[in-house]
Amino acid sequence: MTDLVALRRALHARPELAFTEIETAAKVVTELTGRADSIQAGTAVCDLDCVTGLPDPDQLEASRRRALASGVPQELVRTLGEGATGVVVTVRGRRPGPTIGIRFDMDAIAVGESTSPAHAPTRGGFASTRPGIMHACGHDGHVAVGIELGRRLCADRDFAGRVLLVFQPGEEGVRGAQAMVAAGVVDDVSVMLGLHLGIDLPVGTVAAGTQGLLATQKLRVEFEGEAAHAALAPHQGRNALLGAASASLALHTLPPHGDHTTRVNVGRLVAGTAAGIVPERAVMDCELRADDETVLEWLRGRAGDIVRGAARSYGLAASVTQMGAATVARCDARLVQDLMTAASTLAAVQTSLASAPMRASDDMTLFMSHVQERGGVATFALVGASSPAPHHHPLFDIDERALPIAADWLERLIRAGL
Amino acid sequence: MTDLVALRRALHARPELAFTEIETAAKVVTELTGRADSIQAGTAVCDLDCVTGLPDPDQLEASRRRALASGVPQELVRTLGEGATGVVVTVRGRRPGPTIGIRFDMDAIAVGESTSPAHAPTRGGFASTRPGIMHACGHDGHVAVGIELGRRLCADRDFAGRVLLVFQPGEEGVRGAQAMVAAGVVDDVSVMLGLHLGIDLPVGTVAAGTQGLLATQKLRVEFEGEAAHAALAPHQGRNALLGAASASLALHTLPPHGDHTTRVNVGRLVAGTAAGIVPERAVMDCELRADDETVLEWLRGRAGDIVRGAARSYGLAASVTQMGAATVARCDARLVQDLMTAASTLAAVQTSLASAPMRASDDMTLFMSHVQERGGVATFALVGASSPAPHHHPLFDIDERALPIAADWLERLIRAGL
Amino acid sequence: MTDLVALRRALHARPELAFTEIETAAKVVTELTGRADSIQAGTAVCDLDCVTGLPDPDQLEASRRRALASGVPQELVRTLGEGATGVVVTVRGRRPGPTIGIRFDMDAIAVGESTSPAHAPTRGGFASTRPGIMHACGHDGHVAVGIELGRRLCADRDFAGRVLLVFQPGEEGVRGAQAMVAAGVVDDVSVMLGLHLGIDLPVGTVAAGTQGLLATQKLRVEFEGEAAHAALAPHQGRNALLGAASASLALHTLPPHGDHTTRVNVGRLVAGTAAGIVPERAVMDCELRADDETVLEWLRGRAGDIVRGAARSYGLAASVTQMGAATVARCDARLVQDLMTAASTLAAVQTSLASAPMRASDDMTLFMSHVQERGGVATFALVGASSPAPHHHPLFDIDERALPIAADWLERLIRAGL
Amino acid sequence: MTDLVALRRALHARPELAFTEIETAAKVVTELTGRADSIQAGTAVCDLDCVTGLPDPDQLEASRRRALASGVPQELVRTLGEGATGVVVTVRGRRPGPTIGIRFDMDAIAVGESTSPAHAPTRGGFASTRPGIMHACGHDGHVAVGIELGRRLCADRDFAGRVLLVFQPGEEGVRGAQAMVAAGVVDDVSVMLGLHLGIDLPVGTVAAGTQGLLATQKLRVEFEGEAAHAALAPHQGRNALLGAASASLALHTLPPHGDHTTRVNVGRLVAGTAAGIVPERAVMDCELRADDETVLEWLRGRAGDIVRGAARSYGLAASVTQMGAATVARCDARLVQDLMTAASTLAAVQTSLASAPMRASDDMTLFMSHVQERGGVATFALVGASSPAPHHHPLFDIDERALPIAADWLERLIRAGL
Repeated sequence: MTDLVALRRALHARPELAFTEIETAAKVVTELTGRADSIQAGTAVCDLDCVTGLPDPDQLEASRRRALASGVPQELVRTLGEGATGVVVTVRGRRPGPTIGIRFDMDAIAVGESTSPAHAPTRGGFASTRPGIMHACGHDGHVAVGIELGRRLCADRDFAGRVLLVFQPGEEGVRGAQAMVAAGVVDDVSVMLGLHLGIDLPVGTVAAGTQGLLATQKLRVEFEGEAAHAALAPHQGRNALLGAASASLALHTLPPHGDHTTRVNVGRLVAGTAAGIVPERAVMDCELRADDETVLEWLRGRAGDIVRGAARSYGLAASVTQMGAATVARCDARLVQDLMTAASTLAAVQTSLASAPMRASDDMTLFMSHVQERGGVATFALVGASSPAPHHHPLFDIDERALPIAADWLERLIRAGL
Repeated sequence: MTDLVALRRALHARPELAFTEIETAAKVVTELTGRADSIQAGTAVCDLDCVTGLPDPDQLEASRRRALASGVPQELVRTLGEGATGVVVTVRGRRPGPTIGIRFDMDAIAVGESTSPAHAPTRGGFASTRPGIMHACGHDGHVAVGIELGRRLCADRDFAGRVLLVFQPGEEGVRGAQAMVAAGVVDDVSVMLGLHLGIDLPVGTVAAGTQGLLATQKLRVEFEGEAAHAALAPHQGRNALLGAASASLALHTLPPHGDHTTRVNVGRLVAGTAAGIVPERAVMDCELRADDETVLEWLRGRAGDIVRGAARSYGLAASVTQMGAATVARCDARLVQDLMTAASTLAAVQTSLASAPMRASDDMTLFMSHVQERGGVATFALVGASSPAPHHHPLFDIDERALPIAADWLERLIRAGL
Repeated sequence: MTDLVALRRALHARPELAFTEIETAAKVVTELTGRADSIQAGTAVCDLDCVTGLPDPDQLEASRRRALASGVPQELVRTLGEGATGVVVTVRGRRPGPTIGIRFDMDAIAVGESTSPAHAPTRGGFASTRPGIMHACGHDGHVAVGIELGRRLCADRDFAGRVLLVFQPGEEGVRGAQAMVAAGVVDDVSVMLGLHLGIDLPVGTVAAGTQGLLATQKLRVEFEGEAAHAALAPHQGRNALLGAASASLALHTLPPHGDHTTRVNVGRLVAGTAAGIVPERAVMDCELRADDETVLEWLRGRAGDIVRGAARSYGLAASVTQMGAATVARCDARLVQDLMTAASTLAAVQTSLASAPMRASDDMTLFMSHVQERGGVATFALVGASSPAPHHHPLFDIDERALPIAADWLERLIRAGL
Repeated sequence: MTDLVALRRALHARPELAFTEIETAAKVVTELTGRADSIQAGTAVCDLDCVTGLPDPDQLEASRRRALASGVPQELVRTLGEGATGVVVTVRGRRPGPTIGIRFDMDAIAVGESTSPAHAPTRGGFASTRPGIMHACGHDGHVAVGIELGRRLCADRDFAGRVLLVFQPGEEGVRGAQAMVAAGVVDDVSVMLGLHLGIDLPVGTVAAGTQGLLATQKLRVEFEGEAAHAALAPHQGRNALLGAASASLALHTLPPHGDHTTRVNVGRLVAGTAAGIVPERAVMDCELRADDETVLEWLRGRAGDIVRGAARSYGLAASVTQMGAATVARCDARLVQDLMTAASTLAAVQTSLASAPMRASDDMTLFMSHVQERGGVATFALVGASSPAPHHHPLFDIDERALPIAADWLERLIRAGL
């Protein structure tokens, strides 16, 4: 087993949710400290002011305790433990050249990993040790590739320019990129790269760009009504649970767009307190997506109408807070070409595509658009990983042969010059 | 301020949810230890095998820690700290006579107390110190009256028979009486009494019996579907949140009965994990009520159809678990008459009714029907308390002049002989 | 078979919906013409200006054609055929006395009569000849009793005062009384009587008054959205069907009132035009009821919120039109006493109650409150009829022995003097 | 104004719904009688046994009366007036050759035409004279083109083979093609052509094939519950309206497919009878569509679950009847090429595409797949018409310059040989 695979498996076994990636970020820091030119972490690279919905103090405290128990040094826990878990590692090449940013996202999601022996991590003994949390999107692989790439670039400085390895928290919920962009970490970047493992491609296939990435808004909807004794005075209640139930159904009845791809999901609903009380409060976590910003705004308008209408119907106060956002992607032809050329030098790559569809959302797009708006170029590349199940599924997995492909590909690109 | 009022205020400030009433039960034990003939607590008087939905280990642990911090002796915490918070205090009279059971319920509910200065507990500085938990049903008063009555009976044994003061956990959710009945605590009781403060009566008015108490079932409904990535593969999901939303609405559309009073409430709904994942699981806490057991069964049948239908519609597995139950009340005329006579001797009572409506549910009815089935008599009496707001409301309160009325009334009855 | 029974059966076989009771009204007119002092029909006794939702021109035309085909004279069809089907028959007694109004409602409802041989009208060959329309509320009996009473009073003028037999259209939907009150037909009445067959009482039992009659409002809700091609441009539609579906469910989730009886029903919903078009329009016929006018207003407010909220949620315009109304009943003690006395003289009456519950609505209450507001007295009496099924059910029926009881009772009361 | 335009305008002013296209079919017959080799109409070319949901007898009768009143000869009304409104016109060329079928659909839809002066038919005085019915899909133009083409081919037989002009009823609801295919009208056809005006293309642009046509099923869902008096005995009812409302919402919450285009629409809902009765029956007209037959089956399965689940939830019986169907389209490359060649000879065509998207459904696909399964070739061509509004919209219109383009294009193709 190579270091790269071992690293990925260690990360896979210790998944961490958005903004509590202390062990993961600490792994980045400890692996590259003493090698890289500089390593910045915490609030220096993560502006938490633009993050809504950080984990609550109890959750942060629990994540700090967990990290300490697993051996993360106290000082690192202090730096990373308030939600600002981002890390930026700088490696300078021997020769002058552009500033190249590469994003690696670190967080896991709230999915319980399959315990089936058919599932490789379970069979291999490196499945998640944390019930209900899983690296079901390949970010464990991303981080491992990022560390491996860092090691290689540090070990051999034969490349032009300066590489910033941007380890981002909270991609799920599309909240972490905002914070790092706001902290200015890619302000000087003129070439921005990101990569994703999986996305329905088989191992051996790569794509130098993507199409179809969906702009998205993550919304928290809160309803507030009035509690009442459900038997003695039901008429005095204003039922927030029913308002939220009605709004959930209505949001899912939003029509598809005749000319665009859209998605609506109410992913979480928590309402009420006890069987005998008319529910006073309800919270919904929703997301809207579209392949076009204008269509997303249209969807946002209709979703807002639904929330306000449900509030009116059930006599509730309602609020909608944007928790996260990502935009669509435009992959620059020049950079795509450079990646295609680099891919052609890799024996393990059988098929290299200029572009492949990725009909999800990723806040990598915020790094891209920020760099592009400032005159730089950007792309989001895909590395096939032959997952037997879709992303976010308890049986999601990556074929580990994808890991060296990803690391080699990025290394070749950088060493070839940009 | 009398001891009785001070006691009630102390209890009011430290409300505890069902099966975590450690401080409250400890107060009963410590106040009456050394006075009563015997005091039993914990699993000896609470058969937890028939309780579904005890607080989870973390919550029990937190309640133990809280109790220890507030000074409850370690040994008592051990006895009471696993959910079996019931206490039975026995006081023998000087003369032979019947075994008299009197039930006092101890738990608070998950309602945040009003912080308005118009609210007496807030103004008086004895409002709940525990956010989101409140004695909004008068059980603080019940416990205070029970302790006071215990003190008086212990101090002066001039009465016939044996009095069992039954301090019950978990009346909210109607789960505690089941556990104490199953433990046999009222098996020898031939006269069963319960009392409730408030219930829309003004202070100075009492009722020796009730009518209209609703039989009830508390149900936990669980739906399980399939998670999926909400953008890449929404068609692979089976959305438990939407199933639960649809079932919630449908349960509330169950028709009223033309000839009976019924109530339906979905009081809590928790579904899904994150905005971007099709929700896999949903849990609903519901209650059904009716003024007749046959009608309750009819309602239960229709509710079951709704749950199974929603599961079918959304491709989910569903289960329904009964969490608590209470039945209707039949108040015995002889006992009602004895209470009327006792009330007539109290100067503070302006109006005494043979019966008053109480259109809620109470598992006092399980003690009553158990004793009645074994040949005993029972009633459930009401003591007006002029609350400015309905039960379970953040502004619920009791006029403290009701407390000595309740204690005096019970004492007079017992001393008059039964 | 007596004339009275034959008359009822003939009416039963030819049921007519609200405001199309041409054959029924014509039967009243032809049976009593030449006997009564005066007979008024049509717009003279029915102010159609206050009726919303008359049958549309096609339906009126069809009803006229049907009536002509069944032998109603052309002139009568002209008088009755535009919706004003009310008839007022005046019979003067030999002696001076008060003006006594008695209301008989004439319309049938849109229920298909049972074809089971267990159903007496089917077995007896006098079931409805009109599919989907049925006298399922006993109004056939009411009209038969009214005609019979008219014959008797005309034949023997030995009574004091003047009797107005008020044959009312459109009680279902509570629209006809409004029209006759507005036309002034009971302005001079000082004693107002109405009677209903059935209402859960067995034959041989009568009640001189009612309690629990529900005030009601019948509402037509109209939603207007925007049509669109359901496949090419679903996003351009505004779906009135879904708005109405959501509002229907929400209306049925309106909570019961802790202290009052309420009822909500969406009885009819028509939306959209064809499978492939996003529905542009929807119409709902609803009713709200309560045993108290203030509670009815509360319910009306909440229903209005639901409609406006659903419109907002689905991007629709909405309107609510009141189609009919009735109020609660107050039965005057003096009149109840007179009826009790009269009942005591009838051998066929085994049980006479001062009052019995009637938890439905009836616009008889509008005649009552109009007369009472002008200083008169009123009551609404019930005559048991042992129906094997509830009112409005395909198996509803009346025990025909109730018919002479009703006629005798009213006759005795009038001849005894009021 | 050319004959072709005049013809289209006459047809536009007299729109007819599916299976009542008597005037339209009669126009075809009378225009081509005496010119064509043979004309068949009625049940000879329309097997009504496979049509579900024909207009009811009253509607057919009304359509016959209307047609007679507008001058259609009695004999033709007899042939066409029972729903079998299809016409097949045969024109033989001078030279031997293949049998060429060309489909022209005739029906209008239930949309009220815009009365805005901005709408050309209104401004031009040829808007629909029938309220609520409109040629909002261009079929008026199709029929006009078909008649014009017939005239030209009859007038000059210089072409090879035999042309069958297939005038189809009931394309809306995709029911008419089934009936004509079942009658065998295209059994001998080896080249099958269809064409559609509009479909978002500007006038001057044509497409020789389509992609994205959606397979579809039109479903009638019927729920049957139990009626009850909504105030006296609501608990005895089984509410079909609420079951249908819940099913409607649930159908619209069916998730999009991650990899395919799908559509769901509940286009019509009729439930209940009157405000005061618990609704016993409900009927829904729905459609499902997908760009793949397997996905359509998946959707059908989930829709069936929803219907059965709603029935279970509300205690109803449910049935689902397929009313119409169409499949996806495969356009044969050879035929597309021939059409491209023909288009290149037309001066009025600026842009000719091999294929254009048509994301609706059309039962032209049933003719195509029938012919293709027997070894023939087929395509479905589009002729741009610059409509200012989408199909099925009150403002839909066609630029009449599209009409001669369509007629010329088909004529050139036929004369060029196939």
